[in-house]
Amino acid sequence: MKLSNYFLPVLKETPADAEIASHKYMLRAGMISQSSSGIYSWLPLGLKVLKKIENIVREEQDAAGVNEILMPTIQPADIWKESGRYDDYGKEMLRINDRQDREMLYGPTNEEQVTDIFRRSIKSYKELPSLLYHIQWKFRDELRPRFGIMRGREFLMKDAYSFDLDMDASRTTYNKFFVCYLKTFERLGLKAIPMAAETGPIGGDMSHEFLIISDTGESDIYFDKRILDLIDIDKNLDYENDLSTIVSSYQDFYAAADDKHSEEEFEKSVPKEFKSNTKGIEVGHIFNFSSKYSEPMKANVLNSNGKAVPVHMGSYGIGISRLVGAIIESSHDENGIIWPDSVAPFAVGLINLKAKDKDAIAMCEAVYQDLISAEIDCLYDNKDDSAGAKFSRMDLIGLPKQIIFGNNSIKDSTVEIKDRKTGHTELVKISEIVSKINNN
Amino acid sequence: MKLSNYFLPVLKETPADAEIASHKYMLRAGMISQSSSGIYSWLPLGLKVLKKIENIVREEQDAAGVNEILMPTIQPADIWKESGRYDDYGKEMLRINDRQDREMLYGPTNEEQVTDIFRRSIKSYKELPSLLYHIQWKFRDELRPRFGIMRGREFLMKDAYSFDLDMDASRTTYNKFFVCYLKTFERLGLKAIPMAAETGPIGGDMSHEFLIISDTGESDIYFDKRILDLIDIDKNLDYENDLSTIVSSYQDFYAAADDKHSEEEFEKSVPKEFKSNTKGIEVGHIFNFSSKYSEPMKANVLNSNGKAVPVHMGSYGIGISRLVGAIIESSHDENGIIWPDSVAPFAVGLINLKAKDKDAIAMCEAVYQDLISAEIDCLYDNKDDSAGAKFSRMDLIGLPKQIIFGNNSIKDSTVEIKDRKTGHTELVKISEIVSKINNN
Repeated sequence: MKLSNYFLPVLKETPADAEIASHKYMLRAGMISQSSSGIYSWLPLGLKVLKKIENIVREEQDAAGVNEILMPTIQPADIWKESGRYDDYGKEMLRINDRQDREMLYGPTNEEQVTDIFRRSIKSYKELPSLLYHIQWKFRDELRPRFGIMRGREFLMKDAYSFDLDMDASRTTYNKFFVCYLKTFERLGLKAIPMAAETGPIGGDMSHEFLIISDTGESDIYFDKRILDLIDIDKNLDYENDLSTIVSSYQDFYAAADDKHSEEEFEKSVPKEFKSNTKGIEVGHIFNFSSKYSEPMKANVLNSNGKAVPVHMGSYGIGISRLVGAIIESSHDENGIIWPDSVAPFAVGLINLKAKDKDAIAMCEAVYQDLISAEIDCLYDNKDDSAGAKFSRMDLIGLPKQIIFGNNSIKDSTVEIKDRKTGHTELVKISEIVSKINNN
Repeated sequence: MKLSNYFLPVLKETPADAEIASHKYMLRAGMISQSSSGIYSWLPLGLKVLKKIENIVREEQDAAGVNEILMPTIQPADIWKESGRYDDYGKEMLRINDRQDREMLYGPTNEEQVTDIFRRSIKSYKELPSLLYHIQWKFRDELRPRFGIMRGREFLMKDAYSFDLDMDASRTTYNKFFVCYLKTFERLGLKAIPMAAETGPIGGDMSHEFLIISDTGESDIYFDKRILDLIDIDKNLDYENDLSTIVSSYQDFYAAADDKHSEEEFEKSVPKEFKSNTKGIEVGHIFNFSSKYSEPMKANVLNSNGKAVPVHMGSYGIGISRLVGAIIESSHDENGIIWPDSVAPFAVGLINLKAKDKDAIAMCEAVYQDLISAEIDCLYDNKDDSAGAKFSRMDLIGLPKQIIFGNNSIKDSTVEIKDRKTGHTELVKISEIVSKINNN
């Protein structure tokens, strides 16, 4: 992509209301634009990252055998009355009357809706387990939206739902998602720690949230540092294997957010040198709530004895739009964002510092075409701006590598390649750019 | 994908309220499930087709140099008051008050919102043309939703917006979208006829809608049959070329929907043998409305003389969810759907008629693995159902090819390959399945 054709409205000034790094940098890097309180438009650079995260989440759901569906954003109130949550949910639910004065709502979550789909479709235990997920915009009418897309009102979430015949099968499914989440977050360049959690408005018996360490997190977290060494899931993991040993290995170490924290337990079970008490950002949450929804909503299947029994359910969420912010919180410096390779909007930025020089333009164009041919996604800064403006813009948007075509590039046929994270630069022959980028 | 792991709730009976083929078959093939009036969930088979269409639309927008963004579904009423459309839009607009009692709405279209993004970001004619698109759910609160997703309330649309310095530049952009639309619909296996159109609530000076011929269409259309021969856009078309000759070639032939039809003109300009009067389904609509939104919303840029002038705008819509239905309307028979290759949810279906036989299972598994290795997307019907049930299910869901593993397959090492469209079957050696499928 050539910068001259790219909609990238970077800002020089940090907007006054942006308190944390991700909010500040997402606005400054032209990733998002505020539409109203807690509601944002995603501009090309932001959307590209959002889609990369979405695709990694999707790939891991698919690998775990979960079927993708897409439920609508607008739900009828009826099914929430069936489950009993319509009144419970309070003002965070955006309630709407349509032109026929029917009660509708913008879905904050989808337990009722997916249970309705399930009960119309599946009648026999032979068709279980049934695992469904969707990636859809949700709305929660937060009283005080803040931190940009980290606590917005309209947000993108992957939510999966499981239907099993009994508690044993349901626990096996729960373990599958537990491990799937560890693997997903690892691919995103994050160390997300699973912690026993309260179940809140979703309800249920068994629940974990996944948190990443961050000074700007909203939760106080307490954990045994040795748990961080566990987070290393086999890339070729087969989700059909027994995953209970992986899950239980995490339960050997203390890890809890404030709502579940017991100071006494923390003292007793964690040696002093392994104690960590810091802040965390929640990026995922999994729940098992057995028949909390299937009973009132009559989502029954016939078991092997021909008896109708309510299915056992769980739900499993990953905050996809929130992850964009969470990744920035965990990976930035004073000059801007530092994207992990897996979610970087472009793999490299090519900076032409002599954007008026015909020879330089021809040589940069050739480099750009070579990168395209090698399927290396490149943002080519062909704009006629000052060197300072170009460097600070490229640092701000945080692409992993920068190829700098400067004063000596024409006569020496070399460029500098800069690593955004380390700041390390290296002189590379133009003919060797592609192999250099590919071998990093 | 193995059918035993796939959420595909096919129905034997046609639901009573489904009047047209697409609605009937989408429900029966387990592609969608109704959530409330005019609102549907997309189940795995339907979602796969929706995404294929979405990706073709996206590829052609990207090829035409349009930048992808994503605006939120919930918009503030303020910007609609600025443009003057808030009161005009009537009851089709879903109006919402949030918990702070601010007036919000679920976007039925995005002219105001994109103009707001533009005016905050672009200040100089040097940054024009600026072309933006997004693919997002919209809501129009239809009084009588009908025909399934063809006239639903929550629907997926690609809408693009252009910003140019003057009318000449704006016309060049309009031509780009005109040709891009022809190419997009062609890739989807459709012959969409461009017709001069009324501008309706979007407004403006110049407008075309794109309609496909269908008995179940809601518009009466009148056209010169020779226009159908024109629809054949070069696959490697360069959108930077002058496209005005392509566009004007279409204007040589009469084509109009009822709202713009002139019987007198039709009589005068079309020889009897080329006259066609039938029904059509609208799948796309493009508008040029110069400064209708930029003036009231003060979306100005500085021109080369340093003077602030309102930009010239256009908008360009494709109904992505509606296209799923439109394609079915134009491609089905009495047994079910017949997908064009480009949007088929799977390229082939593999039917094991001996799903209890160990040898058959092993041989089918090997065929399935060969197909996966060759990157041929296959739905493997490994279920233990009757042959009749398997055949009618596979015909219903309309995959282009069926590989039928039957009674003689084990001893002869052959399968039948059936073409869904023609019904033609051919005996093929198992070792030659992949090359046979690839050469078709």
